[in-house]
This record gives sequence, C-alpha cells and structure tokens, in this order.
Amino acid sequence: MDVISVIRAKRDGKALTDEQIDWVIDAYTHGAVADEQMSALAMAILLNGMTRAEIARWTAAMIASGERMDFSTLTRPTADKHSTGGVGDKITLPLAPLVAACGAAVPQLSGRGLGHTGGTLDKLEAIPGWRATLTNSELLATLESAGAVICAAGDGLAPADKKLYALRDVTGTVESVPLIASSIMSKKIAEGTGSLVLDVKVGSGAFMKTLDDARELAATMVGLGNDNGVRTVALLTDMSTPLGRTAGNALEVRESLDVLAGGGPADVVELTLALAREMLTAAGLPDADPAKALADGSAMDHWRRMITAQGGDPDAPLPQARERHTVHAAASGTLARMDAYDVGLAAWRLGAGRAHKEDPVQAGAGVEMHAKPGDPVTEGQPLLTLHTDTPEKFPYALAALTGAYAIGGEAAPQRCIVLDRIA
Amino acid sequence: MDVISVIRAKRDGKALTDEQIDWVIDAYTHGAVADEQMSALAMAILLNGMTRAEIARWTAAMIASGERMDFSTLTRPTADKHSTGGVGDKITLPLAPLVAACGAAVPQLSGRGLGHTGGTLDKLEAIPGWRATLTNSELLATLESAGAVICAAGDGLAPADKKLYALRDVTGTVESVPLIASSIMSKKIAEGTGSLVLDVKVGSGAFMKTLDDARELAATMVGLGNDNGVRTVALLTDMSTPLGRTAGNALEVRESLDVLAGGGPADVVELTLALAREMLTAAGLPDADPAKALADGSAMDHWRRMITAQGGDPDAPLPQARERHTVHAAASGTLARMDAYDVGLAAWRLGAGRAHKEDPVQAGAGVEMHAKPGDPVTEGQPLLTLHTDTPEKFPYALAALTGAYAIGGEAAPQRCIVLDRIA
Repeated sequence: MDVISVIRAKRDGKALTDEQIDWVIDAYTHGAVADEQMSALAMAILLNGMTRAEIARWTAAMIASGERMDFSTLTRPTADKHSTGGVGDKITLPLAPLVAACGAAVPQLSGRGLGHTGGTLDKLEAIPGWRATLTNSELLATLESAGAVICAAGDGLAPADKKLYALRDVTGTVESVPLIASSIMSKKIAEGTGSLVLDVKVGSGAFMKTLDDARELAATMVGLGNDNGVRTVALLTDMSTPLGRTAGNALEVRESLDVLAGGGPADVVELTLALAREMLTAAGLPDADPAKALADGSAMDHWRRMITAQGGDPDAPLPQARERHTVHAAASGTLARMDAYDVGLAAWRLGAGRAHKEDPVQAGAGVEMHAKPGDPVTEGQPLLTLHTDTPEKFPYALAALTGAYAIGGEAAPQRCIVLDRIA
Repeated sequence: MDVISVIRAKRDGKALTDEQIDWVIDAYTHGAVADEQMSALAMAILLNGMTRAEIARWTAAMIASGERMDFSTLTRPTADKHSTGGVGDKITLPLAPLVAACGAAVPQLSGRGLGHTGGTLDKLEAIPGWRATLTNSELLATLESAGAVICAAGDGLAPADKKLYALRDVTGTVESVPLIASSIMSKKIAEGTGSLVLDVKVGSGAFMKTLDDARELAATMVGLGNDNGVRTVALLTDMSTPLGRTAGNALEVRESLDVLAGGGPADVVELTLALAREMLTAAGLPDADPAKALADGSAMDHWRRMITAQGGDPDAPLPQARERHTVHAAASGTLARMDAYDVGLAAWRLGAGRAHKEDPVQAGAGVEMHAKPGDPVTEGQPLLTLHTDTPEKFPYALAALTGAYAIGGEAAPQRCIVLDRIA
C-alpha cells in the first residue's frame, strides 16, 4: 500500500477500498503519511466526493485510531446533542442539565470556538473556577452526581480526526459533507453515547447556507449514527439570525441562566425544549416533561450541581467587559432582519472568539441585541450594545455590523426555528 | 492576501487573479505558504484546471522566483530541446553535439531520472570523469568551445518550480497539464534559450498515454514559449515501444556513440535528425544538413569536445554490469510488440533508475533488446539481455517483462515515430 496510489484513486474519481481507507487513516495518525499528502487527498475527497460505504469506513477508521468510552455502568440511558455551530448558540448550557433533570445522562463532550461561531467551553469558562478538562473518572463521577457533564473531549478519542481537523482548517478543505460528517460522528460514536440528536444549522451564520446542503449533511450523519448503534435524529434549524439576544461568552451564560430560571428569549426556550424532547425520546424516555423541569427549578438544580462538580461557583458574579458602545436605531419601524454571520463576526472582533486555536478569548466581550426581527423599534432607542475589553476594536465590530440589520415598515415573514427533522 | 482564500477560489472553480498567483508562488518559495497548503492547491488545479491566462501568469511567477540566464554574448543562435521523458530516450546525447556541429549553440540543462524513465545526466555519468554540475561561467565556456553543453540546471533557476516539483511527486499531483507545462517552460524560459523544440512523448512509456492529452500539453507549452519570446515547436512522438535497442545508462551511451559514428538503430537516427532539423530551423539555420554532420564525423568531433570539457574521457571503456541474464524467444514468428513501460520498469528494477531522488544508479544496469517490433525471430534466439550488478533483482525484472512482448504470425502495423507537429 502506498499513499500516492490512494490519492490517485480518489483524484481519478474511484471509490477507495476498505483496505485503502484503513491504511491511510492509520498511517496518517502515526506520521507515515505526511500532512501535504493528506491535504491533497482531502481536496480530492472534497471535489470528487465519497460513497456512503466510503464515509462509513472512513468514520470507522477514525474511531479505531483511538479509545472508545463506555457508559454501560450508568443506570440511566445516555443522550447527547451536537450542533454544527452558529451565532448565539448557547443551547447546550440549559439543555444538558434540563435533559439530566428529566432522567437521562448527558455526556456532552464539547469544543472551543474558531472563527465567527462561539464554543461551548469558552462560554462556560466565563464562570469563575470552572474547569473544562476532566479525567475519564471525573467525567463519570460528574455524570453520576449531576446527570450531565460538559467538558473537553480527551486526546484519546479519535486522534486521527483531531489531526485531520486541524489540517483541513488551514488547507481550504473544511466544506466537504463526507469530511464534516465523519469528523463529527467519529467523535460522537467513540464517546459511547446511546442516542444522539444533531442540531444542523442552516443560514448565513452556519456552515451550511442552504437547506439542501444541510439535509445532505444531516442524512449522512443520521445514517452513520444508526449504522453504528447510536439512535440518531437530526433537526435542521434556522441560523439566519442569531439565537437569543446575546452573542459572547459571559453574555450567553447569563442568558442561559434566564432560561433555566423559567424565562429567557422565546427562540432559545423553543429550541431547547424541541431538542430536549428529541433527546429524551431517543433515550427511551418519551413521557418526560422538560417544560415542567424548567418551570419547577429542577433543571436549574442540575445546572448548579454540574457547575460545582467541575470547580465552578454558580453564585459568583459573571465577568463584564470594561467598555461598552451602544448603537441606536436611526429610524422608527419594524426590525426587518439581524444577520447571524455579521453579528458573529462583530462578536469575534470584539474578542469573544479567536483567530488561532491557541489565542485567549475575552469572557465579557460580545454583542447584545435589544430587538429581534419582527420587533417594533423607535428612532433613537438602543438597538445593539457592544462589549469589549479592547475598545480599539469597536470600529472593526461596527464595520461588520454595517448592513447586518434593517428597519422597515413591514416585518419580515417569521421563520420557524425548526425547519425540518431527519430520522 | 491569505492562502486559504486562494485555495478556496480554485477549489470552487474560479480563475485565480494575477495578484493571487504572484503572491502564492512567492509565499511558497519563501516558506510563508506551507507544503500542505500548496499540495491542496495543486490538487484543486489538477481537478479544476487553469485558463491559458492563469498558466501564463503561473509560469511567469515561477520564472520570477529565481535568476534568468543570458546567452546574448554568444555569436551563435541558441537552440534547446526538451523531452517529456520516455524509455530508451537517449536522443539528447547525439542530438546536442549534432546541432552544435551544424552551427547552433545548444545549452542543454537536464535532469536526473525518477521512476521508470531514465535521466540524461544519469546516462552521461556512466562516462568516467564526466561532471554534471558546472558553474555558470564553466557552462558558457563549454558552450563557446564545444558548441553544446549538457549539465544540471543550477539552483538559481525557477526555485519555486524545484520546490513544487518535489512536492507534486509525493502528493499525486503530477499529471496536470497546467502544472506540467508551467514546470517545464518556466525552467526553459529562465534558461534563456532563443528557440526550443519539445519532444512530447505519447504511449505506454510516457506520461501522456493518448494523442489528445499530448496535443493539449504540447499546444499549452508552445503557446507559453512563443508568448515569452522563445521560438517553440513541438513534435509528438511515439513512446509505445522503447527507442533504440537499449534502456540503461552506459548501454544508452554506447548506442548514442553508434549513432554519432554514422550507424545506430534506425528509429534513434530518424528521431535525432527530425529534432535536429526542427532545432536548426527554429534557430534560423534552415539550410544546415544534420545527416551530413553525422556522416562526416563532425557531430562526433563536437561530442568529444563536449565530454572532455566536462572532465569526461571519451576514450575510456564504459562500465559494464557484473551479471547478465538472457531471455530467449519461446517461438518463431514476428515480434508483435515490445512495451515501453514494461521495459522501463525492468531496467529500473535492475538498477538503472532510482526510487528516491537521493538513490544512486548503476551505470551498467539495463535491458538490451535483440529485436524490435516487426523483426522476424526464431525460437531459441536471444530476445533480451538483462544487465545488473545486483542479480537478486533478475526475478523482479523478469516479472515486469511478463506480457511485455508477443511473438505472432503477423507484424504489428508499423507506427511512425513522429505522430504530429505543433507550432
């Protein structure tokens, strides 16, 4: 087996054999295939595609590159959620303790943000004392005591994916359905969850800009999950406008606490409940009532236990940015739109996200929205508040927001958050 | 300018701008674009192609990455030849002194062999004392005194191409017309020749397996040459069967000496004369008579001067391999075919070529053919003689030759050597 024959086969439009896939993933993990060879192969995969059988084998080979976790000692069924990433997407924060409060165990291995989409771990690190990195035994202990854990995936899970993901990020080979699907699903299957709900984002703030592309990605991932014994369902959800009223780390923690306290923005509550119902049904708990668990405080109780178990102080004040800048409405009318990508870019420029994976993020930075599309606004009212510790970035954030929103006489037709369901 | 946007543009089927091309070639040469990024771009170019304008700019950027040579001090017009590589292709050896004998100056900057095709420098290094590496002033002095020089291209010529060529070799991105054409032509244009004849090989032993592919490559290179002020013509020539009766380093030097002495295999003589006439016409010497220069010994005289100027002893005995193995004809009839790729592979396995660019080659190793397609053969007569210093390789060479030839009742239709001409 040699790597050039594997690259040539895919380059020339052939399907890779099982042996070729197993060999190339193993050889890349161990350094026998070089980065410049894998990136050429990734580009050939992006341009020439993969069959369903190839994607399944590629995923299996990435799982086999590392360890598999085992939650069979737990008495409760496991359920996990994965979002393909969006702006203001803090849903994991209220969702994990909520589903735990309804009887499932939620092992939520998460990532950090890169580019304009925020990362769940970055958000939780805004909480004083909270630690993202746990040993496997700490992870299991937290899952036992709090019913949910949100932490960094260990280095042992799908190391081939970790290496390939970093390579794709710098070689223009991210936007490939076979590579995205196998990357996400290899980690989730290796993680050992019994059921999985995928939140596949569609729209300006998401990787997938069209419903057709999102459907293809969702169907590929649902097939991979179910073929590997993980009950998997996908919701396609709107990401043309940011979720909730905040984009930023501490800002989104605060908004998540509002939801756990029974309040919060309607769209965040709606999506949190929709995903919770899917997770509970997939976990074999279709009669659980997540709305009740939000209302009666049991979800908040599980949140406090989960944060405390990971060293966080749930009562400590959240960090705030040192500087603020308010954007006022230039006219009266209805807010016609608020673009997710533009808001995400502004939050990133204010310091909420990172350009390189080793960069720090600002806990307090981000964008606060005082109106959602469809809301009436009055000339001179605050429309957006920008938060940052580095006020020299205000002009760059404001530049990103030029054209992000419009105030008109008519409301834009209200789009449902859940656009489709694929099972 | 950032490299990911350049990769994405080509990946998504767009033409690269002049600024993108200039920047990416310069940044790659200086290490600001990494190998894994350039290989992804090369794969995107291979699969999505390049416009004629992009190829021209890419070639110009590679020329600009290094120095340009200047032969304007010579009183004679310069003419060069480039072959895309074949099996038994020793034509440069008799051709350069022959064209010099007819009045042109031939600055023949050549390469070493990789894979199943031999390299001109490897062949000449079979001559005791001969040196491939010359300084620019030694090169000019040899050109003045002998009329021809065959030597290694200096590191200063198109360094971007040198780096990219090595990368393409290990990333499955060799077989791209834009990349092959720009690689060859950037070196030839930077070398500063006034005219150039391209020998584009077609058939099993060549990169280009079909006449259509070869025509596309030839037309691209002819356009690049003429657009850059180099009078350029291409001959498309047959490489389905090896040229002459030998494939191997010292074996091919000996056959070249036969041609320079007025003898030698008919096909080698035919192609040498055809290329010589094209070079002389392109150099503005259409009335020169290369057949006469072979017959009257003046080509041999220029050979001896050229070899001597580079430290070689034209009278020293050539090295011979320590071991031989003869393959006898299993039947009587007509030799129907002798496959160029198979013979090249056998010669390579016997030690005439290298697997890695730092490997040594055996001067004496190779394959000698005692019959050419169309020749009558008698059962039991010697058909092939294999030469090597490493007789443990005989079985591997013999395996490559299984199916390489056939003896039948009828001769295969004789194919012309020159298949087409593109100017």
